Amino acid sequence: MSFEGKSGKYLEDVVLQFTGFPGIGRKTALRFALHLLRRSDTEVELFLEAVRKLKTQTKFCRICHNLSDEDICPICSDNKRNHSLICVVEGIHDVIAIESTSQYNGLYHVLGGLISPIDGIGPNDIKIKSLIERLENNKVDEVIFALPATTEGDTTNYYIGKKINGLCNEITVISRGVAVGEELQYTDGITLGQSIINRKPFFEIMKK
Amino acid sequence: MSFEGKSGKYLEDVVLQFTGFPGIGRKTALRFALHLLRRSDTEVELFLEAVRKLKTQTKFCRICHNLSDEDICPICSDNKRNHSLICVVEGIHDVIAIESTSQYNGLYHVLGGLISPIDGIGPNDIKIKSLIERLENNKVDEVIFALPATTEGDTTNYYIGKKINGLCNEITVISRGVAVGEELQYTDGITLGQSIINRKPFFEIMKK
Repeated sequence: MSFEGKSGKYLEDVVLQFTGFPGIGRKTALRFALHLLRRSDTEVELFLEAVRKLKTQTKFCRICHNLSDEDICPICSDNKRNHSLICVVEGIHDVIAIESTSQYNGLYHVLGGLISPIDGIGPNDIKIKSLIERLENNKVDEVIFALPATTEGDTTNYYIGKKINGLCNEITVISRGVAVGEELQYTDGITLGQSIINRKPFFEIMKK
Repeated sequence: MSFEGKSGKYLEDVVLQFTGFPGIGRKTALRFALHLLRRSDTEVELFLEAVRKLKTQTKFCRICHNLSDEDICPICSDNKRNHSLICVVEGIHDVIAIESTSQYNGLYHVLGGLISPIDGIGPNDIKIKSLIERLENNKVDEVIFALPATTEGDTTNYYIGKKINGLCNEITVISRGVAVGEELQYTDGITLGQSIINRKPFFEIMKK
């Protein structure tokens, strides 16, 4: 669906911009552009201002590299949280996902990517060095790996695991298995197999 | 999923902005915000500039009210198109949709809405008057109604039909029926019923 020269190049430009967004095709991009066109000048100005501020004013936490308005993010500066627990995640979206479960009260360490030789991303391209420094300079009890269940995630787990071995009491990995509410027949074979291998004592689960 | 105060208010602001977009929930809005955060400053500036230009530089065609960079849109100023044929549509997205079929070579008239008493939209709130003027001042052979198959669309068809009766040779409506590739069992009853009532001679269809 092309309409260059039919409804103007300014529309076409915005549609092209939106097609660069994750999961957005031309039809949705067009809906977005027309949506902005229908909004008042003030509303569009607010939108542009919000994006500009996000891009220019946002900082990354000096300790955990989470997104923050200050030098140190509200999670790292929260004394009520358990500072001897660090959860290693790939990106900011993971911090948000875990925070929204309300099941975790420790700190984070945002790597900003995963080791991926195919994409040319090595250990020095992500925030591993600063994790090691954190563990060297602070008494940390447990490091939890919460990286994606992919080859890159496993590689990164393995690399960091070797590097930080001995710098904390315990290294754990979030559990993998059949998702809550999922039927066994629809679970992929590898996950189902792993969930059998990694089975837990029934009464231990019941107590939680 | 709320993360205000956890990853900064600038992120929250952009997420709120994107949740106002059609069909976008918080999770997708967050993906969009993080997508912009990952882009380079230049890329984000290009995006902002494109939106700003769309909003400030875009005009509406003086004749048909389609979006245009000029006073008169490329469709209305195209001499190869059939100027005695006007297709009445609700919005710019309909012009784009019909143009992308490559089946139409006439002009358009973009109403910019539909008559909808519930929403307080009357005949004077959409571009009906300028359609009447177009028909009075130009020799138009046929007006095609291509409005949505909804109550509002039907109401608008009916209202305009009465107003322009006699100002052109013929008034037609785009056909409604079973969609191409659709199975009868999945077609809704009203559409299927209408498609039987509005059946066409078989050999007439075959010739096309």
